[in-house]
Amino acid sequence: MRVVLSLGGSVLAPELDAGRVAAYANAIERLVDEGCELGVVVGGGGVARDYIGAARDLDANEVQLDQLGIDVTRVNARLLITALGSSVDPSPAHDYDEAADAIRRGDVSVMGGVTPGQTTDAVAAALAEYVDADLLVYATGANGIYDADPNVDETAEQFAELTPEELVEVIVPMSRDAGASAPVDLLAAKLIQRAGMRAVVLDGHDPEAVENAVLRGEHTGTDVVPAGGAEPSYWAQR
Amino acid sequence: MRVVLSLGGSVLAPELDAGRVAAYANAIERLVDEGCELGVVVGGGGVARDYIGAARDLDANEVQLDQLGIDVTRVNARLLITALGSSVDPSPAHDYDEAADAIRRGDVSVMGGVTPGQTTDAVAAALAEYVDADLLVYATGANGIYDADPNVDETAEQFAELTPEELVEVIVPMSRDAGASAPVDLLAAKLIQRAGMRAVVLDGHDPEAVENAVLRGEHTGTDVVPAGGAEPSYWAQR
Amino acid sequence: MRVVLSLGGSVLAPELDAGRVAAYANAIERLVDEGCELGVVVGGGGVARDYIGAARDLDANEVQLDQLGIDVTRVNARLLITALGSSVDPSPAHDYDEAADAIRRGDVSVMGGVTPGQTTDAVAAALAEYVDADLLVYATGANGIYDADPNVDETAEQFAELTPEELVEVIVPMSRDAGASAPVDLLAAKLIQRAGMRAVVLDGHDPEAVENAVLRGEHTGTDVVPAGGAEPSYWAQR
Amino acid sequence: MRVVLSLGGSVLAPELDAGRVAAYANAIERLVDEGCELGVVVGGGGVARDYIGAARDLDANEVQLDQLGIDVTRVNARLLITALGSSVDPSPAHDYDEAADAIRRGDVSVMGGVTPGQTTDAVAAALAEYVDADLLVYATGANGIYDADPNVDETAEQFAELTPEELVEVIVPMSRDAGASAPVDLLAAKLIQRAGMRAVVLDGHDPEAVENAVLRGEHTGTDVVPAGGAEPSYWAQR
Amino acid sequence: MRVVLSLGGSVLAPELDAGRVAAYANAIERLVDEGCELGVVVGGGGVARDYIGAARDLDANEVQLDQLGIDVTRVNARLLITALGSSVDPSPAHDYDEAADAIRRGDVSVMGGVTPGQTTDAVAAALAEYVDADLLVYATGANGIYDADPNVDETAEQFAELTPEELVEVIVPMSRDAGASAPVDLLAAKLIQRAGMRAVVLDGHDPEAVENAVLRGEHTGTDVVPAGGAEPSYWAQR
Amino acid sequence: MRVVLSLGGSVLAPELDAGRVAAYANAIERLVDEGCELGVVVGGGGVARDYIGAARDLDANEVQLDQLGIDVTRVNARLLITALGSSVDPSPAHDYDEAADAIRRGDVSVMGGVTPGQTTDAVAAALAEYVDADLLVYATGANGIYDADPNVDETAEQFAELTPEELVEVIVPMSRDAGASAPVDLLAAKLIQRAGMRAVVLDGHDPEAVENAVLRGEHTGTDVVPAGGAEPSYWAQR
Repeated sequence: MRVVLSLGGSVLAPELDAGRVAAYANAIERLVDEGCELGVVVGGGGVARDYIGAARDLDANEVQLDQLGIDVTRVNARLLITALGSSVDPSPAHDYDEAADAIRRGDVSVMGGVTPGQTTDAVAAALAEYVDADLLVYATGANGIYDADPNVDETAEQFAELTPEELVEVIVPMSRDAGASAPVDLLAAKLIQRAGMRAVVLDGHDPEAVENAVLRGEHTGTDVVPAGGAEPSYWAQR
Repeated sequence: MRVVLSLGGSVLAPELDAGRVAAYANAIERLVDEGCELGVVVGGGGVARDYIGAARDLDANEVQLDQLGIDVTRVNARLLITALGSSVDPSPAHDYDEAADAIRRGDVSVMGGVTPGQTTDAVAAALAEYVDADLLVYATGANGIYDADPNVDETAEQFAELTPEELVEVIVPMSRDAGASAPVDLLAAKLIQRAGMRAVVLDGHDPEAVENAVLRGEHTGTDVVPAGGAEPSYWAQR
Repeated sequence: MRVVLSLGGSVLAPELDAGRVAAYANAIERLVDEGCELGVVVGGGGVARDYIGAARDLDANEVQLDQLGIDVTRVNARLLITALGSSVDPSPAHDYDEAADAIRRGDVSVMGGVTPGQTTDAVAAALAEYVDADLLVYATGANGIYDADPNVDETAEQFAELTPEELVEVIVPMSRDAGASAPVDLLAAKLIQRAGMRAVVLDGHDPEAVENAVLRGEHTGTDVVPAGGAEPSYWAQR
Repeated sequence: MRVVLSLGGSVLAPELDAGRVAAYANAIERLVDEGCELGVVVGGGGVARDYIGAARDLDANEVQLDQLGIDVTRVNARLLITALGSSVDPSPAHDYDEAADAIRRGDVSVMGGVTPGQTTDAVAAALAEYVDADLLVYATGANGIYDADPNVDETAEQFAELTPEELVEVIVPMSRDAGASAPVDLLAAKLIQRAGMRAVVLDGHDPEAVENAVLRGEHTGTDVVPAGGAEPSYWAQR
Repeated sequence: MRVVLSLGGSVLAPELDAGRVAAYANAIERLVDEGCELGVVVGGGGVARDYIGAARDLDANEVQLDQLGIDVTRVNARLLITALGSSVDPSPAHDYDEAADAIRRGDVSVMGGVTPGQTTDAVAAALAEYVDADLLVYATGANGIYDADPNVDETAEQFAELTPEELVEVIVPMSRDAGASAPVDLLAAKLIQRAGMRAVVLDGHDPEAVENAVLRGEHTGTDVVPAGGAEPSYWAQR
Repeated sequence: MRVVLSLGGSVLAPELDAGRVAAYANAIERLVDEGCELGVVVGGGGVARDYIGAARDLDANEVQLDQLGIDVTRVNARLLITALGSSVDPSPAHDYDEAADAIRRGDVSVMGGVTPGQTTDAVAAALAEYVDADLLVYATGANGIYDADPNVDETAEQFAELTPEELVEVIVPMSRDAGASAPVDLLAAKLIQRAGMRAVVLDGHDPEAVENAVLRGEHTGTDVVPAGGAEPSYWAQR
């Protein structure tokens, strides 16, 4: 089973904490031990936010902010790599070819952002497309997709399952406002749609949640399932 | 005046034709003679469509199709470069840093796509953001933005002017369907929105239309003007 | 058995056609299944000819034409890669080290041109030298080497077998004229000579002809056999 | 006058602070306005310390710690670049050739670390050697070189002036202990010695101190002056 | 006037000698002072011969020998660069784009070999093609082109002038034998032919001979002049 | 058992000699046959000394001299590679990541210098740190570490065993003088100290000495053994 895991910066590194990184490294290694082939895409977290904030005060433009953010995602990728054993490519991948080649050779590949104008959410979706992943997992700060922002609207209801088309429909209005942030960004949703990919969006604060979702299909987040897609029997039974 | 010009593949190279490339090269050189600093982003055109069609028949995935498309945009970039004189960077830029560095040093930079999952529309917007362009021009197959597809709906009306926020609003429903194609893609529109950039979308079949738009502000397409933005007096008067 | 296969552009992609690419991909995979280690060098074909024609009309110099041609050979390489399964290096090799490293690791490597002033015929010969190939196969538009141009001279006779020295002797007069084109270019012939390499030049329109030549030594083209070289028993018996 | 400026991480970024970065950017721009050619080497600061601490808890080896540190110095370099105007190379230099080439072309070049096992102190000395700098300035947390650690020994006395040979003599005993940290590291001192370079070590908390030292030769730190070197009249009078 | 100068290894570095390198550096700087734009391609000389000899004893294949030779030409290029002043690109160019870009920006570019299977003679011709050089000068161990090998045949007569076509005719028989060496290799001659380039082949042991040939058209070697080419008045009068 | 071997230039290539290179290649292959994982770092030797001497006469600065030296170490690395069989990475590694990745994949990696200001002694120590080598072997011109220079002081006594801390203590005074040369340079000693690494310094003129030291722990040089380190039983018994 081939899996791409998007580790949001707010999940892996809200602030730098070795224990949290170690816990995720352990979860990844258990997935590898169970036979998973893994690509991991990490976000920027608190350090990226700090640099971007400082640069914004210095009147940097948006592409410069993106570049700072990408740099930090790659430092986070390297930090996670130091916590993984010998089955990981020791250099963060800088583009899709590097990541795909490492995965094809049996290594876990860890990468951050790729280019300005493209979030790590979208990078994870593109990598999953490229390596024909069986499953794309977004470990984010929110537990799946809601019909409203659960932080501000108490009546917000979570979707248990969406088709990729429905995912795009739901994300679009959340994405209109420049400042808005959906649990998965719109470009990522559209890449999921064009590839007809299976995905899960779940609360990533506990690394075990990712293990349970990947190995047993058990999670409390949102499943994205292409219409007419096969049952996700592969993870329960492999 | 600093300008980024997006030359749609259907405009520069619907099929390969030296005359058409030469006409665009001439227009670009006249803009340079008038003092413009220029970044040019070219699309894939007919050759890209042919390769992508063949690869789709061979069951390539979407990222592989994107890579083939990017490769062809870079060949188109090189072809346009051969038609430009000594003021052009002789190698197609492969990323934003290379393009921005060439422009900063006084060269015209010509580039194609950058990475899978990002159209050349979006590349042009990101490059314009990065070099703090005064104007972003989309020379496309359609003469601006309409409230419906003018090819199928006779009553479709063109917008003469939109704010970046309105542009996103208009593009979003056109982008829902995986197969749909808006004159400017959604990621590009969102980049325009986040940077509050001035843009023009016009029919690029006649290279002079680009010259007129850049040098005199005269065109029959759609202006994208940030709310509260200054009058575009700079191009008429420079 | 280690083989380098030169796939002329006129053979793989006279025009873009998924069926033809798939047929060659199948032949390559059968060779891999039979235990061959394979490097493949692809030419430019019709698309390269179109770009070069357009650029020539734009007064590009010869090196610029070569660069456009190389770019297109690499797009063709990527197209062939999409048709091959998991045993192929997913990125076209850009130089000999990349190709040799992929082959050494057990992958099929597909590449196009390397540098201006060097044809893909010569690239194939240099790659064969570098990886100490047992056999170099030129799948071209002509069925081997003739003592005259069979397209214009009805009495032209094919050579069944030549030594590398004789090959150079035959190619030299065909190469004097700037416009002339031999089935294998002179630099390639001289590389074959200096390495004392075994080669076959055959009509590549039918991919099975390559299989038969490699696996069973059966073909209707021209064998290039170093004087005193061992019998080519290896392919019949492996 | 050509100057290489080493900006210790504890000086530029003890924690991320736009004001501090802006103040240094202003000082650098005033030096450029006064005709200085400038290479700037920035350290890691608080963010580097945090990543290295986390990685050490994860049992990373020393080279991995160095790589994390280098990554962060490059993010700091990019942050400083965003605060500098159009006279700066927009990409952090990754090696000496990139930095020297930018300086030669009239740009300010900003870089961080280069390779594991080499501190940014040493990078600054090597860059100064390579571009034949007239002056190498270390803006550090300490105000020059003392005969003992002024933080623990109240009687520590500052050297007003040292030859490069004396600098090495003083630094050597400070460098014996693995955990020790001299204001300038031993490899840097030895590079200064081999090149017979003029250097200043001063308290960099106030960016104006650097300006005063470079433009007027006024500072309260330590001068390193090769025996028989010319008077440093060049900066007072240029 | 734009000139590409091919400095044979036997001319620049038969053995390593600072005086010889300095003399050539001086000649190059005088050409620059006279307004020439210059690309310089250096050969391998005695050091290359030693490495290739050792590697041949170790059963290296021909491509490995080429790679060792290319490596050494690049060391020679760097040595010549250290002897040139500030108008030279400080890094040896590794491909045609790097060299052409440096020349376009007003630097002297120094390069060695590019890729296996291509001599530095051919590199010089391809670079001259690419930058549309007015003149290509081969400073070799022989004083021009002869109708026989002057070292073995006392009656060998020098050609004072040849067309590119005649050059190819003369070189071909010299190139048949694998061990043979013409003053200019066959691939170079064919590149000169296809580009219709003006060239001079002369004895390069005295750097002043190159100056005289470039600046005043005076030399005792062989002129290669395209049929119907303009008089070489440009160098006498510039 | 994982070993990094530093082959001093004076040991591998005092002058170029195929027999000496072959002897070392054989020793390396026997170590591989015995199950060792190997990284090899080679020095510059006589050719480097010649280039550096010539460049010094041309007034090159110290960094330029380092760059020439690094270039030559890489040519030496390639020469050694041609003598090794199929278990070696065919390209010299240019940085630690390339070397570590090759070793991790089961190849022998051969590299030279990495960057100016860092000797190949230090490169070997950093590579050993990075790949967590069990043993670092310096095959040098001297048979271990002495308390004085044995070439000038007859009473100089060899240390049979030192801790890393003692090694630094001994090396420091040898390193004070700019012209001085210790058997292992100071930066290397300090890297050994910070990593608490086990090392051997021995006379490398006979390749078998390296084999004996690695496989059987028998040598007549100096052991560097971290205080409290385990007995080096691993090499006797593996």
